[in-house]
Amino acid sequence: MPSFSFHVTHTSGSARRGELHTPHGVVQTPAFMAVGTQGAVKAVTHRDLDDLGAEIILANTYHLYLRPGAERVGRLGGLHKFIGWSKPMLTDSGGYQVFSLAARRTVDEEGATFRSHLDGSEHLLTPESASDIQARLGSDIAMVLDECVEYPATYERARGSLERTLRWARRGRDRFLRTKESETSLFTNPGQAQFGIIQGGTFPDLRRRSVEGTLDIGFEAYAIGGLSVGEPIPEMYDITEQTAPLLPPDRPRYLMGVGTPVDLVESVARGIDMFDCVLPTRNARNGQLFTSTGRLNIKNAEFAEDAGPIDAECACYTCRHFSRAYLRHLFQTGEMTSGTLNTLHNLHFYLDTMRRIREAIVFSTLEELRQNYRRIFPAVSADPTLERDPK
Amino acid sequence: MPSFSFHVTHTSGSARRGELHTPHGVVQTPAFMAVGTQGAVKAVTHRDLDDLGAEIILANTYHLYLRPGAERVGRLGGLHKFIGWSKPMLTDSGGYQVFSLAARRTVDEEGATFRSHLDGSEHLLTPESASDIQARLGSDIAMVLDECVEYPATYERARGSLERTLRWARRGRDRFLRTKESETSLFTNPGQAQFGIIQGGTFPDLRRRSVEGTLDIGFEAYAIGGLSVGEPIPEMYDITEQTAPLLPPDRPRYLMGVGTPVDLVESVARGIDMFDCVLPTRNARNGQLFTSTGRLNIKNAEFAEDAGPIDAECACYTCRHFSRAYLRHLFQTGEMTSGTLNTLHNLHFYLDTMRRIREAIVFSTLEELRQNYRRIFPAVSADPTLERDPK
Repeated sequence: MPSFSFHVTHTSGSARRGELHTPHGVVQTPAFMAVGTQGAVKAVTHRDLDDLGAEIILANTYHLYLRPGAERVGRLGGLHKFIGWSKPMLTDSGGYQVFSLAARRTVDEEGATFRSHLDGSEHLLTPESASDIQARLGSDIAMVLDECVEYPATYERARGSLERTLRWARRGRDRFLRTKESETSLFTNPGQAQFGIIQGGTFPDLRRRSVEGTLDIGFEAYAIGGLSVGEPIPEMYDITEQTAPLLPPDRPRYLMGVGTPVDLVESVARGIDMFDCVLPTRNARNGQLFTSTGRLNIKNAEFAEDAGPIDAECACYTCRHFSRAYLRHLFQTGEMTSGTLNTLHNLHFYLDTMRRIREAIVFSTLEELRQNYRRIFPAVSADPTLERDPK
Repeated sequence: MPSFSFHVTHTSGSARRGELHTPHGVVQTPAFMAVGTQGAVKAVTHRDLDDLGAEIILANTYHLYLRPGAERVGRLGGLHKFIGWSKPMLTDSGGYQVFSLAARRTVDEEGATFRSHLDGSEHLLTPESASDIQARLGSDIAMVLDECVEYPATYERARGSLERTLRWARRGRDRFLRTKESETSLFTNPGQAQFGIIQGGTFPDLRRRSVEGTLDIGFEAYAIGGLSVGEPIPEMYDITEQTAPLLPPDRPRYLMGVGTPVDLVESVARGIDMFDCVLPTRNARNGQLFTSTGRLNIKNAEFAEDAGPIDAECACYTCRHFSRAYLRHLFQTGEMTSGTLNTLHNLHFYLDTMRRIREAIVFSTLEELRQNYRRIFPAVSADPTLERDPK
């Protein structure tokens, strides 16, 4: 058995239902990855994630590189062993966080030089070091280092950036493959796969150029990066729709940092198989909840004596046991349990959305699901600035 | 069946093994109550508490009175329904927190006038209102309003305070009984019991006087208050040893705000049946853990690459799944999960200590358990100021 494989079991239009095999188990796709930035999904335990049916989580290379350090994680046997999570895990390249540091980083051909947000110490992240760090972390899926261009960006800026991303992709892939051959011991997870990342901003021809160059290098699979960074939602959908079909049909397609519940359905309909986003977890801690009838802010005074659950249609632990009145009280009083119960609910909503999506692909009812989600979350779909948060 | 009853099933010296029946179920005694100040035990869910085997929790009247308000809780059907906890619950009288406000409260014969720590608004807590508030909250056990004297206090100060506490106890008991007869609808839990509180500082004759006066009034059961407020540990043990046998043998005896693991064993050996303390939960959030070999501070650098569990002898979720290295990482990075996993461990240690105590009473091995705990936690037993925190 190969340690990494993907096969599509059903299609419905451009949407695909599939299975992703990794060294730590199988992921049903389309899949949503909860974000566990520092090796923990905020406010919930691994046991909670298991109960929710989470099959894969994401961890951030930037944060883990700084604390506790990739070499330390390597000595402790890799990220799975270190954090006690035995299912599939993906790590990003660290690039997105470094580029988010803005004033505290400079980028040149060699890589990105940045100052730690923790102690100001200076570090250099290169395509090679991003590969080595992730080899030590031992995630099931590593991401190659890319440059994520801001929005809006001029054509020239986006083109220059994507060409650098291609050169970095070549270096990162070479390092990954050479290390696998000659320095196997660096990998705490010998079956680790590496995904390439498509850039090119909001310019269709640059996206096409990025796909060609990245496929030339060749990765186990491919992600679409540089979206959900502030561009209008229709533009995000358009770029996804144009880019996804250019990617190999027998490999999973990962849309990075996306998105709202509607975005998930809309993007699956355009051929996407994997997602990650902090929206369900971060919003939960801010009291913003997703329900089968739309959004709900648990802070609102109207819920102070509301004995009903967040969502009468929801089967999550929170909705089965607690009232809006109690959840509002926990939020108002700053109880940690507020974050936990809200996160359990939002993650359930997201993972349940993915279950519905997978079912809808099999039964060819994805269009109905899409109309339903558009109806439930109209404002979000129409207004790109509303409570969106790419990372 | 009476809604509140207690019977002793085994004794061993002064220690008692028993069963406490309440409107919301049975509690095996000696019992430890985790503190759920605002209607939630910090950092853990009710499901976690169930898994840990918690049979009773405590909630704070002062906090719930201010937020969300006793009348609101009453309209929502009482505290059990409001917070979604179906097992036994005890509420304190609110007095301890009010007296802790120091500069922000004045006490006279009528009651305690205080300013809210939230918005500075002025409130008056009287023996009558403390009874009414708890009737609305509907805990299984309500506490009568008492005055808790600081340590050290002069004999005259302690005597005056205990006499006032006795007058308040009479008023609080009268209100409780009259309301039960004529205003049943105020009680969201008609089977609520009310405990009296013994005061008298560190003066044995005042403690005796307090017991006589409080028994004269007559409550479902009795608590020993005013200890664990800074007095030397041997003094706390002495007062407990002298006071407990004066209380009716057929009623549970509750030592308020106590204590360390050693305190639990030592106090059970002196005839105590119930405890509450923030120590396991608060210390957990500060990274201070209790283990079968003593205390452990998860912050310490020595644990940075320690792949072992907090306690190799411990069967809790945290110890079965996570390393000291990971738990240190979670603490260092400020992850909420740190508080959750540490709290699960410490509460397990406390509840497991109570299980061992109950077993030791049945098998007459309490003295061995006591020697063992004294050996494991020597410094704490000897030094009263070491990380103690009464409330």
